[in-house]
Amino acid sequence: MIGELISVGTEILIGDTLNTNAQYISRELAQIGFTTYYHTTVGDNPSRLKSTLELSLSRSDIVILTGGLGPTQDDLTKETVAQVFGVEMVFHQESHDTLMKILGHSKNISPNNFKQAYMPEGSSVIPNHNGTAPGILMEKEGKVVILLPGPPREMIPMFQETVLPFLISKSEVKFFSNYYKVTSLGESVVEDMLLDVINGQSNPTIATYAKVGDVLLRVTANAKTQEIAEVLLEKVDAIIKERLGDNLYATEDISLHEVVAKFLMNKGLSLSIAESCTGGRIVSRLTEIPGISSCLHSGIVCYSNDAKVKFIGVKQETLDNYGAVSEETATEMLQGLYEQTKSDIIIATTGIAGPGGGSDEKPVGLVYIGILFNGKCIVEEHQIIGSRERIQMQATNIALNMIRKTIGKHI
Amino acid sequence: MIGELISVGTEILIGDTLNTNAQYISRELAQIGFTTYYHTTVGDNPSRLKSTLELSLSRSDIVILTGGLGPTQDDLTKETVAQVFGVEMVFHQESHDTLMKILGHSKNISPNNFKQAYMPEGSSVIPNHNGTAPGILMEKEGKVVILLPGPPREMIPMFQETVLPFLISKSEVKFFSNYYKVTSLGESVVEDMLLDVINGQSNPTIATYAKVGDVLLRVTANAKTQEIAEVLLEKVDAIIKERLGDNLYATEDISLHEVVAKFLMNKGLSLSIAESCTGGRIVSRLTEIPGISSCLHSGIVCYSNDAKVKFIGVKQETLDNYGAVSEETATEMLQGLYEQTKSDIIIATTGIAGPGGGSDEKPVGLVYIGILFNGKCIVEEHQIIGSRERIQMQATNIALNMIRKTIGKHI
Repeated sequence: MIGELISVGTEILIGDTLNTNAQYISRELAQIGFTTYYHTTVGDNPSRLKSTLELSLSRSDIVILTGGLGPTQDDLTKETVAQVFGVEMVFHQESHDTLMKILGHSKNISPNNFKQAYMPEGSSVIPNHNGTAPGILMEKEGKVVILLPGPPREMIPMFQETVLPFLISKSEVKFFSNYYKVTSLGESVVEDMLLDVINGQSNPTIATYAKVGDVLLRVTANAKTQEIAEVLLEKVDAIIKERLGDNLYATEDISLHEVVAKFLMNKGLSLSIAESCTGGRIVSRLTEIPGISSCLHSGIVCYSNDAKVKFIGVKQETLDNYGAVSEETATEMLQGLYEQTKSDIIIATTGIAGPGGGSDEKPVGLVYIGILFNGKCIVEEHQIIGSRERIQMQATNIALNMIRKTIGKHI
Repeated sequence: MIGELISVGTEILIGDTLNTNAQYISRELAQIGFTTYYHTTVGDNPSRLKSTLELSLSRSDIVILTGGLGPTQDDLTKETVAQVFGVEMVFHQESHDTLMKILGHSKNISPNNFKQAYMPEGSSVIPNHNGTAPGILMEKEGKVVILLPGPPREMIPMFQETVLPFLISKSEVKFFSNYYKVTSLGESVVEDMLLDVINGQSNPTIATYAKVGDVLLRVTANAKTQEIAEVLLEKVDAIIKERLGDNLYATEDISLHEVVAKFLMNKGLSLSIAESCTGGRIVSRLTEIPGISSCLHSGIVCYSNDAKVKFIGVKQETLDNYGAVSEETATEMLQGLYEQTKSDIIIATTGIAGPGGGSDEKPVGLVYIGILFNGKCIVEEHQIIGSRERIQMQATNIALNMIRKTIGKHI
């Protein structure tokens, strides 16, 4: 079944209102196997709304309109739908009674309010327990039009209580999704790695989404039962896991730092971090997670050479002989911070974030990232491409992923 | 002039992405006197995009498309626009060079990436400083089509830098804007403080935008000449400056940490930071700014009590008697870090970010923020309301603003 949304309201067109209804309804439709090809927003203008609705009915099975059901003169959605369907507006006793109950003996009843008791002939009413505008459902010649009020606190309960069960009764298949989170690879690289899988089949489908610093994969199968969907998803699951390897860090939509923080908290491991080029990004991402204070001892942003010597005991000699950006310095950062804190895990970063400070020998983007765990230091050299922001972010992701991988192997 | 928006992306149609771009652009268009009658969202499907674009061009003067400019197979907006305009895709050397600069010698360049160096013939390129997808501007037979990437962090700067000046040049009246950046106050509070000014006039108009951690005010006058606009803007300027006081930190669209970093670099002042509740946010925001290494000595995220004692010499006795979240601890953090670093400016934060860890006496959101400058310590007590994220962010802003205010007074 093909669904389509029309949002009615000048307040959306001038940017006063963010159209969250479109997202909400689209998501609900996708979940129950409806395809949505178009969203349109149109103002409170009968002729533009009429042409929009006619176009939508020509290409979709179910058209859901939100907004324009209020009591004021410019709320004309209902009247326009009646016109398109070629029916009259008729008085609806039950809606009138409900309206009177809500408005009671208020002195503020305007004659306009009674507009809300009129419905297009042959429609059924969708009850609204949170406002005065009832919704409307009309079916004609295999097409369905559903009208809902614009305010989400009225629309959402009406959608859940009445519209969703109606739509499910119309739907033939169900949809099931698996999620994968990938770090340290760009969206286009992930797609390339899976191009044959993406192009080779239509059930399940694979979609990639660029998130801040990583990529989300969603694999969606449609099937009559969950068991059949699982079989379809399983084959792709194995391929994805094999190809993405260590860059795949979760099979749900969760951030890398949350995975790492939860890992540390569950295992009761303590952590200290010495950051140079990442400038505090590792520690500030981990401190987003409540409860991390039980694991995080300290984060030393030793940005200057003096700070590296003073706070974590890097030798001046090492800095002079090898430079601040070197495997030797990274190793001493790890060892020095361990001496100070005795934390179970130590992480260190040192590199050139740019745009200045690079040389032929040590170009911008050269980063040493190290971990000390169980008395053993591992320092990796990375050459990260891109802006200062990207270098700092990628180095942070590599460091966080290093914690995840190291603990995973050992415990 | 009539504008129209087309958002391209299946992720919007299935409800994975909320379409904030439509609101942003609509608001901008309304501000400069454009009328918008329609928003349409369509998936990454060439034939549906083509018919949507043709319909839009038949009824509007300027069509702005967002999304579908990425490097993957299903990003087809550019190609579809070329088809509608009846032109070929041609190689664009400058975009290719920029792309190579961003991707560098990375092993992760995919052949798909080079798609981004091809443009419809006769179009001009809109530079993108935050991503690999350049924007495109095409004019034909009095109609304008503008293509921008979907991610707001790429789209918004491109809109501000290139699209807005272009649109203003098309408009019959001229628009002149003043900008104001405000910290430590929410958008609705800023709006309340200026409500009489906002409601009391239509020229200039005042728009507020919530940014990450602060608020941008844009005051826009329309007039035939700059001189007339300046007279209109001046009156409002005086009122805004008086009412916002110390919370107003810039009269251009610049971030607070950039103002502070530039201040430090211009004055040649050194800085060290001791962070507890802000968890590295102060240091990581400052290290976004290239060249800050000449000023930033160190940032000690002394998250545990042990770290406070070990690295910056807070007395165990002080922690025992007054607690980690206290004026006394904040003062010792300042003094201790000064002893270690002798930096010109020391900043310290300690507080309860929540959601756990609060008590009647010391509730969640209680934060002490201190500065040591010219031998003098000032510690402020703040009670910040909201989520963990908001408390960490607001405390960071207060600390950065404290640096700005203190140096401003003394130098």
